[in-house]
Amino acid sequence: MDDNDLFLAMDVGGTNVKAGLVDSRGRILSRRHFPTSSSRPPVEVINDMVAHLKALAAEAPAGRGAASLAIGMPGWLNQAEGLLINAPNMPGWSNVPMADIFGRAMNMPVRLENDTNAYAVGEWLYGAGRGLANLIVVTLGTGVGGGLILEKKLWSGSFASAVEIGHIPLALDGALCGCGRRGCLETIASATGMRRLGREWLLAGKPSLYEGRPDELTTKAMVDLARDGDEMSLQVFKEAGRALGRVLADIFNLLGLEGAVIGGGAAGAFEYLEPDIREILAERLIVAEPEGVKILRSQLGEDAPLAGGAALLTGRGLQRPRAPLSPK
Amino acid sequence: MDDNDLFLAMDVGGTNVKAGLVDSRGRILSRRHFPTSSSRPPVEVINDMVAHLKALAAEAPAGRGAASLAIGMPGWLNQAEGLLINAPNMPGWSNVPMADIFGRAMNMPVRLENDTNAYAVGEWLYGAGRGLANLIVVTLGTGVGGGLILEKKLWSGSFASAVEIGHIPLALDGALCGCGRRGCLETIASATGMRRLGREWLLAGKPSLYEGRPDELTTKAMVDLARDGDEMSLQVFKEAGRALGRVLADIFNLLGLEGAVIGGGAAGAFEYLEPDIREILAERLIVAEPEGVKILRSQLGEDAPLAGGAALLTGRGLQRPRAPLSPK
Repeated sequence: MDDNDLFLAMDVGGTNVKAGLVDSRGRILSRRHFPTSSSRPPVEVINDMVAHLKALAAEAPAGRGAASLAIGMPGWLNQAEGLLINAPNMPGWSNVPMADIFGRAMNMPVRLENDTNAYAVGEWLYGAGRGLANLIVVTLGTGVGGGLILEKKLWSGSFASAVEIGHIPLALDGALCGCGRRGCLETIASATGMRRLGREWLLAGKPSLYEGRPDELTTKAMVDLARDGDEMSLQVFKEAGRALGRVLADIFNLLGLEGAVIGGGAAGAFEYLEPDIREILAERLIVAEPEGVKILRSQLGEDAPLAGGAALLTGRGLQRPRAPLSPK
Repeated sequence: MDDNDLFLAMDVGGTNVKAGLVDSRGRILSRRHFPTSSSRPPVEVINDMVAHLKALAAEAPAGRGAASLAIGMPGWLNQAEGLLINAPNMPGWSNVPMADIFGRAMNMPVRLENDTNAYAVGEWLYGAGRGLANLIVVTLGTGVGGGLILEKKLWSGSFASAVEIGHIPLALDGALCGCGRRGCLETIASATGMRRLGREWLLAGKPSLYEGRPDELTTKAMVDLARDGDEMSLQVFKEAGRALGRVLADIFNLLGLEGAVIGGGAAGAFEYLEPDIREILAERLIVAEPEGVKILRSQLGEDAPLAGGAALLTGRGLQRPRAPLSPK
């Protein structure tokens, strides 16, 4: 790797795609943001993606072309083969050979990675997790994702799977989760879960400063209202923070991690989540003094999976470095 | 390391001490078993230990003397300094510089290790976990202990701590745990927890084939009774198996492990625990097909921490190999 190397990175979500031209220090030199439009067939969306990626590649300074592409996606992947098996929030996206398709279209090697893993590597190398050897990065979005860095390497386990923390059960009689069970962490602490809790509060006629329609409630609106002391928002964040604290305490006790980074779309609520996470850790942490572990807010936000994806292209932080798949 | 090398290993529990002369393939050439006698002051017990270890050392074949000692203990350790900070079930054993004391008495380097970690290494290198790269070893004894092997190395995390799985909460209104909280895994699935559940069944006057005094009930008696279809024993094992299954499912989903080895004093109940563990995994496993993970019964039993302790003396399976502490 050369300090002058550039990389393309793309983060594909159910609603939006973010793409960027990234340098070897994780800086985003240029970026694109466009809708996934899940109502359109995947082939059309892929054509859009390729056009945006080509435009980004063309923005590289003279003599510094991007030579490889990282794609971060949610869902079930065969990472080694660059195959998207299934993306729960993207109808029609099953068995899509992403690395093959983009490798041929862009004529460059492609690495497909779980989006939360790319996010975790970004925050660890360039963001809030800098300098830690053992940490978990938790993303609060449509679901709750997790990425583990263990001994300065992205953990992928025996099945090259994501770190599935969103479906750890907290209340057997809790709300129905997308996975078919009840009371999973993400029914409470994802952005979706927090909005649901807020909506239920409003529909029950409990007092709140919120004046919009319950089904238009956002976590951002709740953060703004919390600043004014809104009872609904504070209560929802307390519940989410306590749920996160319970799961983090178990994970810290299991693995002896130094810290957790909280990211994703609802990380704006960090200041309201942290005190309850800390309170539960103070009650439950066994392996270390509660003050000895760090609870940090994501620093890179949406840029994290782009910066992390680019870093993974160089093999940094990989347990078993594997070259990206070259076009056939 | 030479194939001819021999090692002393000692496993210290609240009730008994096991010690052995171990070869470089984990075979126990000679062993001792004696009571810890927690009513006696630690200094007397230590004198006993030294006498037994010297006797074991004297049993080494001519020309093959044991040159180092591994000590496995429960409790809170400073592994790097060979210091026992605190052993909950051994009154009076606080701030005992084990490596120093035994290093001087035996005139050999000493490695102090958490007993469950030594057990895990033994089962992984020489027992049920042979050949797996990522696994957890769970011991069901006075408490529930855990040892993790990740990417063919004993995991110790940022605080060189044990893997604390016994205090993962399963029922907030459950039985009071030694840690002061309620409903921890070990109130249900440890040998102690199973005996308690059985005793409560008997004291409630529910039907059972058991004819002894409730407070003399053992897990071994329950295993024997379960073979005859005893309702109490089967119900207790079902509850313990389901609790283990819930915790193992979360850990498998977090880490993508290939398997779990169930050991410790109550591992005799394995055949009755396994079906319920499997049933919960079938419901909850996300990262792999439930049939793709192994649930195995410990093969070495009491010998596991001795064989594992000896292996750790050679640096095998250590993340950051560290020489045992030499006598000063």
